Amino acid sequence: MSFSLPVYRAPDFSAPAFARCPNARFVPAPCDGAAPDGYHSTSMYPEYFRIDGRWTLAEESRMDSCVVLRGNGRLDVVELRNLKQGDLVALGRTDDGADGIYLHIGGFADPEAQAEADAFTFRQGRSRETSYTKDYDRLIQLLRHEKEHGNILWVMGPAFSFDAGARAAMQALVEAGYAHGLLAGNALATHDLEGAHLHTALGQDIYTQQSMPGGHYNHLDVINRVRRCGSIPRFIQEYNIQDGIMYSIVKQGVPFVLTGSIRDDGPLPEVIGDAYQGQAAMRSLVKQATTVICLATMLHTIAAGNMTPSFRVLPDGTIRPVYLYTVDADEFVVNKLLDRGSLCATTMVTNVQDFITKLAHGLGVL
Amino acid sequence: MSFSLPVYRAPDFSAPAFARCPNARFVPAPCDGAAPDGYHSTSMYPEYFRIDGRWTLAEESRMDSCVVLRGNGRLDVVELRNLKQGDLVALGRTDDGADGIYLHIGGFADPEAQAEADAFTFRQGRSRETSYTKDYDRLIQLLRHEKEHGNILWVMGPAFSFDAGARAAMQALVEAGYAHGLLAGNALATHDLEGAHLHTALGQDIYTQQSMPGGHYNHLDVINRVRRCGSIPRFIQEYNIQDGIMYSIVKQGVPFVLTGSIRDDGPLPEVIGDAYQGQAAMRSLVKQATTVICLATMLHTIAAGNMTPSFRVLPDGTIRPVYLYTVDADEFVVNKLLDRGSLCATTMVTNVQDFITKLAHGLGVL
Amino acid sequence: MSFSLPVYRAPDFSAPAFARCPNARFVPAPCDGAAPDGYHSTSMYPEYFRIDGRWTLAEESRMDSCVVLRGNGRLDVVELRNLKQGDLVALGRTDDGADGIYLHIGGFADPEAQAEADAFTFRQGRSRETSYTKDYDRLIQLLRHEKEHGNILWVMGPAFSFDAGARAAMQALVEAGYAHGLLAGNALATHDLEGAHLHTALGQDIYTQQSMPGGHYNHLDVINRVRRCGSIPRFIQEYNIQDGIMYSIVKQGVPFVLTGSIRDDGPLPEVIGDAYQGQAAMRSLVKQATTVICLATMLHTIAAGNMTPSFRVLPDGTIRPVYLYTVDADEFVVNKLLDRGSLCATTMVTNVQDFITKLAHGLGVL
Amino acid sequence: MSFSLPVYRAPDFSAPAFARCPNARFVPAPCDGAAPDGYHSTSMYPEYFRIDGRWTLAEESRMDSCVVLRGNGRLDVVELRNLKQGDLVALGRTDDGADGIYLHIGGFADPEAQAEADAFTFRQGRSRETSYTKDYDRLIQLLRHEKEHGNILWVMGPAFSFDAGARAAMQALVEAGYAHGLLAGNALATHDLEGAHLHTALGQDIYTQQSMPGGHYNHLDVINRVRRCGSIPRFIQEYNIQDGIMYSIVKQGVPFVLTGSIRDDGPLPEVIGDAYQGQAAMRSLVKQATTVICLATMLHTIAAGNMTPSFRVLPDGTIRPVYLYTVDADEFVVNKLLDRGSLCATTMVTNVQDFITKLAHGLGVL
Repeated sequence: MSFSLPVYRAPDFSAPAFARCPNARFVPAPCDGAAPDGYHSTSMYPEYFRIDGRWTLAEESRMDSCVVLRGNGRLDVVELRNLKQGDLVALGRTDDGADGIYLHIGGFADPEAQAEADAFTFRQGRSRETSYTKDYDRLIQLLRHEKEHGNILWVMGPAFSFDAGARAAMQALVEAGYAHGLLAGNALATHDLEGAHLHTALGQDIYTQQSMPGGHYNHLDVINRVRRCGSIPRFIQEYNIQDGIMYSIVKQGVPFVLTGSIRDDGPLPEVIGDAYQGQAAMRSLVKQATTVICLATMLHTIAAGNMTPSFRVLPDGTIRPVYLYTVDADEFVVNKLLDRGSLCATTMVTNVQDFITKLAHGLGVL
Repeated sequence: MSFSLPVYRAPDFSAPAFARCPNARFVPAPCDGAAPDGYHSTSMYPEYFRIDGRWTLAEESRMDSCVVLRGNGRLDVVELRNLKQGDLVALGRTDDGADGIYLHIGGFADPEAQAEADAFTFRQGRSRETSYTKDYDRLIQLLRHEKEHGNILWVMGPAFSFDAGARAAMQALVEAGYAHGLLAGNALATHDLEGAHLHTALGQDIYTQQSMPGGHYNHLDVINRVRRCGSIPRFIQEYNIQDGIMYSIVKQGVPFVLTGSIRDDGPLPEVIGDAYQGQAAMRSLVKQATTVICLATMLHTIAAGNMTPSFRVLPDGTIRPVYLYTVDADEFVVNKLLDRGSLCATTMVTNVQDFITKLAHGLGVL
Repeated sequence: MSFSLPVYRAPDFSAPAFARCPNARFVPAPCDGAAPDGYHSTSMYPEYFRIDGRWTLAEESRMDSCVVLRGNGRLDVVELRNLKQGDLVALGRTDDGADGIYLHIGGFADPEAQAEADAFTFRQGRSRETSYTKDYDRLIQLLRHEKEHGNILWVMGPAFSFDAGARAAMQALVEAGYAHGLLAGNALATHDLEGAHLHTALGQDIYTQQSMPGGHYNHLDVINRVRRCGSIPRFIQEYNIQDGIMYSIVKQGVPFVLTGSIRDDGPLPEVIGDAYQGQAAMRSLVKQATTVICLATMLHTIAAGNMTPSFRVLPDGTIRPVYLYTVDADEFVVNKLLDRGSLCATTMVTNVQDFITKLAHGLGVL
Repeated sequence: MSFSLPVYRAPDFSAPAFARCPNARFVPAPCDGAAPDGYHSTSMYPEYFRIDGRWTLAEESRMDSCVVLRGNGRLDVVELRNLKQGDLVALGRTDDGADGIYLHIGGFADPEAQAEADAFTFRQGRSRETSYTKDYDRLIQLLRHEKEHGNILWVMGPAFSFDAGARAAMQALVEAGYAHGLLAGNALATHDLEGAHLHTALGQDIYTQQSMPGGHYNHLDVINRVRRCGSIPRFIQEYNIQDGIMYSIVKQGVPFVLTGSIRDDGPLPEVIGDAYQGQAAMRSLVKQATTVICLATMLHTIAAGNMTPSFRVLPDGTIRPVYLYTVDADEFVVNKLLDRGSLCATTMVTNVQDFITKLAHGLGVL
């Protein structure tokens, strides 16, 4: 089975159906951080807006945001809170052209993509009993492609930093070039660094599972030491850290965004405490990503899923799909994402420890 | 079954076991936001520190924080990040007095509390098959007491804002005086206000379950309108909101803290975007609470649980227990809290819709 | 909201679409317990078979079974294993009349039922976050109707026999006439009788939750005593049992079927050890049921669901719907049923303890 | 890390503590299928009974059963229902020798086993976030040992018969000699044979996940064909089955026991319909097993767990441990087993598809 990206077919706006579409309307935002009544809200699919008779794609999209027409004719997709008073915001709640807005769902509809589309209905039933072999096979092919030609963004919950083998598998993937970005929270980085520094996570050995006496201090001591060092890279240097996810991410120069939450200890110095600044930083990595893999985190998965469109416009103008994978032990989490409308996701129900080691084996890096 | 609070028995520091305990050591924090090596980290139990031969209780405690000796002899329990350079931080990693620090677990050990303590071991097995009738009975008694003599803090995930009946039950509890504070996120408030304004949650009718055409805009429109109003109370006034959780909270003047997360749309104006400022605001309510009830939110439950001690020092110096309840449909969530060490919790595995309506019935407010 | 059963509209077989339908073909079963190639398999909906030019309904249907034409022209719906060599088995794998077989899905399509039908698609997303108030309201109305005019069959897992309050609620429902049959396993009956006899379940007090010393013998002693008594009714008499589910079921003369499984201790004398004789006994109660309520048991729920059709032909020839409710704490279980095709079910995700007490309150029996 | 079995250390009955122990008492069963009052119930640990001053081990034990003294001095462990009137049943509810019965828990307490014992407390918290690398490593070592020197019994739910890759992994393990027995239900065998015969499970392709038109008949057709063939081996031959779990089990001559349940279609000819005859057949395989691996089935796992002791007496009189593994996607299932007291289990929370492929890779058979 060889791998090739599906080709994007733009809408044929010369078709009769589009002949009587009006231009899209844009009206100024009434104040900072709010939209005019009747504003249009984006999906994850390509959306075209008719401006002066020409259909223009909003190139960097995301879900549930406004579309702002800039002076240069460019369309920006802007979250409510980031609107500025006077921004020209698209109005319209249809997406078939009647309001000058056209949502293009079937753009990647070559036969293979079609089969995938057909699977959508079915996908709602995804559970621990779904057959996943094909999904592993495809993902491995995809990552081989993306390593050279794309941008792989990992979104990670803390779950597999508790396991020595899973950490090693992820490190191997990073070192082999299969990571171009990381989104995570304070906990993932903290547990991982505790593993590297003291071979425990929350005081429990990451291989033998034995709880260390007084081990509950390990977690807090690592945070305290990193804070005193002032940054994760300096901690890695000063404490001679030699393994793990953060170690390899830093060593390989992979950009990472750590966002904070109210359950954090610490936090580590790099953690962005403000949720909305955090979203902005996350989206800056998402905008480059062509494959997003979300592991064992409902919070970060939904956050990343909402800001990940189904397509990417490459520098040469080519439009390609963005692949989104969600892996979690709990059907509720993966279905939650589906409920939110992030339908382009491939969801897999398993323990992420096993997922990452199978992937590393499949890619030949372990 | 009549209700009375267990009496606190302070340690007998005249006992021979304490005769040779040293004073606790306090050393200055090396910089802002970090602790000296060997710092002591707090639990949720009462902890006493020997200072100049006298044992002093750290009165407002929480988990996983430092103890700072103030000039007036008072002991403050301070999160790592809130330490200031030069703060005198307690050292010591024993809690039996050997380092001048004594952790007092059995303070409420009257027979009933003892029985409760015995249940701890057992509690680890709490699941959907545990018998919960007694827990409901006790909670109802407790809330009757707390309504007059205590402070009831609700910590809520968005789950039951989706259901008309559960919203009504919560509103009835608030209006009957059973709420002295609310901790929640952007989603709870948004869904609840959507229910009041448009009778939907995420576009689906909160009673008939029918999805409204174009209903996915309801969610975003509510956020946009509240943002334009500038505050939740003004939205309630301008849009003539007449029911729901936020409506009753605002009407009754119950203080609330909404904290943000990276998965938020909006957010609503009152939401605190910074996770650590959010923690501080949450803790300001937790410090007054005597009963904390966490419903269907892993994020907020763990956050609140970590900052809730097992005791409260009342203005008259009396020490009483703080009760913590966690209710979730998922064993994993309630067990997660246990893993974190928040052992004083009563955990219940059920749908919070049913929990809240049973409670409202039991308290006679429905 | 007043309650009335939807009226059944039979297909109009005089319509042109049916004009060219052939008679259904029936061929003899090749041996006991197996069907001829190409046999037709039933659904839970009404199915009509064209015989000598007349369309005949298979009146007592169930899923995944064969249709046998008897000498008197009656159509029996027979499980594979119950076929006898020579039985005339219907052939055909279409259900639009092309093979002389017509599946009639929309028979109860009055407006209300239609709304319900519309909810089907949606229903697949049912989770702990679905709004259930309306489902409770409708079920309470339904049970008031069924108490007088229908037949309510309960299918119970052992989960709520662990809780004193839930047992009392169920007992109250039985004593008030809301139970016309019970399907369960060895465990439900054993735990319930242990609760009545020793006030424990698996040795743990069903109200205080305390584990009794040596309490693990309670379970086995109850089984042993019932076995020595020779039957549950005799045990109730000899040991002066005064409360509980089995007590009230026996006292009210409600028929019950207990089926065995490989995880049973004992079993109790009434338990049917053979799974397929057990199915037959279960189906004998299902054939009378008009509402089936399945609580916290994947095994019995799927078993009962598979043998429950969506309709019942009353003695006067009227055709009415059969309502199926499934209540479980786990989305996986309720979704599992949907995967099996039992689409006429209303599924609710909650702890069955709370479900049964809310129901008992709603019906005014507590 | 090399593998060796821990050495069993029998109790030292010459120790003073045993000097005053009485003989165990045995009294006749009052009737078939019931025990005398005060009967002793077994655990999964070695238990010794003092008879005429000598301590005798009940060699083939299981949980929750009676101990019967045979005329030849042998002690049989017999389920309640299998007692015959007059059988001499051990009395006594202590296990420290006071009733002449001694339960020996620490028999395998060499240092490594001790560490394992210490992990018990901890084990209760096993979840998707537990570190499992060591468990995989140990299991792989163990299976290499057992292949030559032990007896590996697989207990399987239907979950991974839905996946082509997992079926292939299991087949490879069977063909490489890593299976000496199989316990399963009707569904596992049916789905697996459907996969081999039609490349679907419940009508859905086991690799592409596509639903076949009319595919719901595949399941029933396979059952019907096997029933007409009269046995699984004959079906394999007649229909030229070439792959899968049942294919390899039959080809390798591995004994298997299929037990029925009330949710079965069919069943297949080999399925034992009576639950208690089924238990007996299962126990006959369990009695030979030295490692039992339970995959994704609560029903069969609890059934097998209850009849699996923690030790085995080999033909040469050596006593060795029996290892029990339970793998399931759901913490509730694995914790359920712990609640039942089957403490010698290693529990792993993951999707069994991934478990089996990792195992097959680790053992070098894929």
